[in-house]
Amino acid sequence: MIFHDDTIAAVITPPGEGGVAIVRVSGPDALRIADALFRCAGPPPTSRAAGTFVYGKVFDPVEEIDEALLLIWRAPRSYTREDVVEFQCHGGPLPASRILRACFSKGARAADPGEFTRRAFLNGRIDLVQAEAVMDLVRSHSDRARAAALQQLEGGLSKIFDQVYDDLMLIAAQVEATLDFPEDELPASIPEKIISEIHRIRSRVNELLRTWNEGHLLRDGALVVISGKPNAGKSTLLNALLGHDRAIVSNIPGTTRDSIEAEFLLEGIPLRLVDTAGLRDSEDFVEREGILRARKYIERADIHIHMLDMSYPSDSESLQALTNLDPAKSILICNKMDLPTLFHVEQWPEVQRVQTVLEQNQGVPEVKEALKQILSGSVDLSARPHVVISERHRQALLDVSREIDQLKALFEADLTDEALVLSVPMLREALMRLGEVTGREYHEDLLDQVFSSFCIGK
Amino acid sequence: MIFHDDTIAAVITPPGEGGVAIVRVSGPDALRIADALFRCAGPPPTSRAAGTFVYGKVFDPVEEIDEALLLIWRAPRSYTREDVVEFQCHGGPLPASRILRACFSKGARAADPGEFTRRAFLNGRIDLVQAEAVMDLVRSHSDRARAAALQQLEGGLSKIFDQVYDDLMLIAAQVEATLDFPEDELPASIPEKIISEIHRIRSRVNELLRTWNEGHLLRDGALVVISGKPNAGKSTLLNALLGHDRAIVSNIPGTTRDSIEAEFLLEGIPLRLVDTAGLRDSEDFVEREGILRARKYIERADIHIHMLDMSYPSDSESLQALTNLDPAKSILICNKMDLPTLFHVEQWPEVQRVQTVLEQNQGVPEVKEALKQILSGSVDLSARPHVVISERHRQALLDVSREIDQLKALFEADLTDEALVLSVPMLREALMRLGEVTGREYHEDLLDQVFSSFCIGK
Repeated sequence: MIFHDDTIAAVITPPGEGGVAIVRVSGPDALRIADALFRCAGPPPTSRAAGTFVYGKVFDPVEEIDEALLLIWRAPRSYTREDVVEFQCHGGPLPASRILRACFSKGARAADPGEFTRRAFLNGRIDLVQAEAVMDLVRSHSDRARAAALQQLEGGLSKIFDQVYDDLMLIAAQVEATLDFPEDELPASIPEKIISEIHRIRSRVNELLRTWNEGHLLRDGALVVISGKPNAGKSTLLNALLGHDRAIVSNIPGTTRDSIEAEFLLEGIPLRLVDTAGLRDSEDFVEREGILRARKYIERADIHIHMLDMSYPSDSESLQALTNLDPAKSILICNKMDLPTLFHVEQWPEVQRVQTVLEQNQGVPEVKEALKQILSGSVDLSARPHVVISERHRQALLDVSREIDQLKALFEADLTDEALVLSVPMLREALMRLGEVTGREYHEDLLDQVFSSFCIGK
Repeated sequence: MIFHDDTIAAVITPPGEGGVAIVRVSGPDALRIADALFRCAGPPPTSRAAGTFVYGKVFDPVEEIDEALLLIWRAPRSYTREDVVEFQCHGGPLPASRILRACFSKGARAADPGEFTRRAFLNGRIDLVQAEAVMDLVRSHSDRARAAALQQLEGGLSKIFDQVYDDLMLIAAQVEATLDFPEDELPASIPEKIISEIHRIRSRVNELLRTWNEGHLLRDGALVVISGKPNAGKSTLLNALLGHDRAIVSNIPGTTRDSIEAEFLLEGIPLRLVDTAGLRDSEDFVEREGILRARKYIERADIHIHMLDMSYPSDSESLQALTNLDPAKSILICNKMDLPTLFHVEQWPEVQRVQTVLEQNQGVPEVKEALKQILSGSVDLSARPHVVISERHRQALLDVSREIDQLKALFEADLTDEALVLSVPMLREALMRLGEVTGREYHEDLLDQVFSSFCIGK
């Protein structure tokens, strides 16, 4: 546990109009500050039991600021493991900001984004993976994302990382033990065991790496880019897909939003829709640049929907577009199938194809089925929500995976002492990168990186 | 105390990203619902003491939704005087909305806007004037408004209304007692006393009515309309006035905002600035309609700033504008005094006049002084914040004032039994209207009117 000698304070409820707002104060002076600002019937905050709250008035220094509840925690049984008090006051901007200012005047300083959770980590209540889950939970925009974040918060993912770490540590211990033996007494069975252990760890790491796709989709949403000529029925498709879910997904932070036309949930995955027509029509771009920009979006897309108006004759441009479709992520919608078909193609590309009459709402379930088909390549939609790794975990695991591959190659080629000696720095590097994931190993830069994406008050 | 047999629930923190969110549940089933959803170490919520909180997990019905704190109140010692629990869970949209849904599934219904406070009123914890102060406090955008709302919340204004009510009631009792006497035994002194009492009440009511100006300015802000030709320096003035305060006032609900260009605080009063040029340039209006619209804004304005470019020759239009200025609320800014003066006027209108060189920041304090001068006609800026009435109170008091004027005229003309008999319905009407202010007298329509402006969760 790290001793912080300063006390931090922040408003931990969102800004805006609401019934209540909360000011949290954490650190050695939390109770003293409460004593100085808060007046209630009965004993002062310092003399009250943890786990209780009391109604009273907040003063600064003699002027009454608001009526408030005061909640009391005592170290180490609190969010940060420090002494903590919370003032639950009236909502709106004034009461909370005045109480916060009063806390500052009594010696608290403004908490940085994520600083309460950073202290929870530094004081050993949670590891770094759990800390990250806090903001994943706050920012979850689907129930599936919420459930996955909650499991991560409660240590589900940490346990997996810890197991890999412990297994690797065991190998390191065995390597060291083997090196300590005189050469002629080398127990031949141990290196064999090391190789099988490395295989096991390797497949565990790759298994974890595969969950990144789902983690990425849950956190950032899937980018769905729609292309096709004007009048092919793109806006009709948009409306059909949105249905009643339009309002569910509102704001996924950390993603480019400038071209997002709509967002909706499909099987608990947030889909963000971009219409390339919107990119091409943009005033900022001449036509050629618009096309370039659309192409970039299509490259980045998790799903690419290309729409054809089947009642319109094919031309070389539209046929060319078909050949460019990536089978792994594309859906080809042949719309207006109720009209005479004038669009002709010698050979359809090998992508999912759906025939629709969107004006009459025909084919929409089939489009959704095709979307699910592509999503199921990244997410096992039939599985219950489970822990999935983030981009930071992925980067660390990719490094670990590389070291393990090298270890594997080294040991499979050669099991001499020399190989064992060479394996030591690889094992160390892998352990360090794994340790950085859960925070067994950490440095200020790593913490700054993790907590900089937090909101104030968490 | 009114017995509600249903239990209501709502998210009481603002929507948006924040560290925590709170779901409040109030009513006879609050603790039973907590028992059903919440699991913690030790005894279940029902067996726990009021004034305590406990950490645990929320389930719906078997799936874990979030980790949360549970706060427990028991009737009648709660916000609503009913049993109340609050779930303090992670911020963001998902956890709170899932917990709310879980409460609904256990029998709670969605609380209407203001319904918690409405129950606090119906159960006799606060009167209607105090209830209204809750939203005034939440919506306060200056410290002066917050302080006035807090005093009102704590009964400062109620006490004044109650005193007027009691005094009027005493008169009604005296009138009745006098009517009960046989005519020949009429105690001559009483009616005289009634008249002096009525004078006293009348001046008290008028005193209260005068505070409406300040209440209006604190709640709605002062509308400052700036007029003048293009290039007179309006945007320079705007920037000079805003200074560092630009971000302080953000959102005053219930007021037209479509033309507000900026808001700032002056002596604790929020000023909302409208530039008539903006109105005239609006695409929606042809020039003539723009001028009409600007004129309407100037009529509604609490303060009207007219700007002159003194380096520009006067013409009939600009001279005409000067004669239209209302001395009670206008400030005439003569700008660009550093340049040769080409603007000539035979007789300056009798309004506050300030000479400025805004480009060089000269004259800004004088402009602020002139603004304060006009504000001080409505608000005693040197006085500490004090309770002030709202529009609803004003309407009731105007009716009371009218009845009292009639009573006064009646009694001053004639003190016979007949006059006393005639006074009875006037007294009753005045008492009823006063009773409606604090809620001694209420009906559903009145409550709907008062609480409809509340936010959800208050």
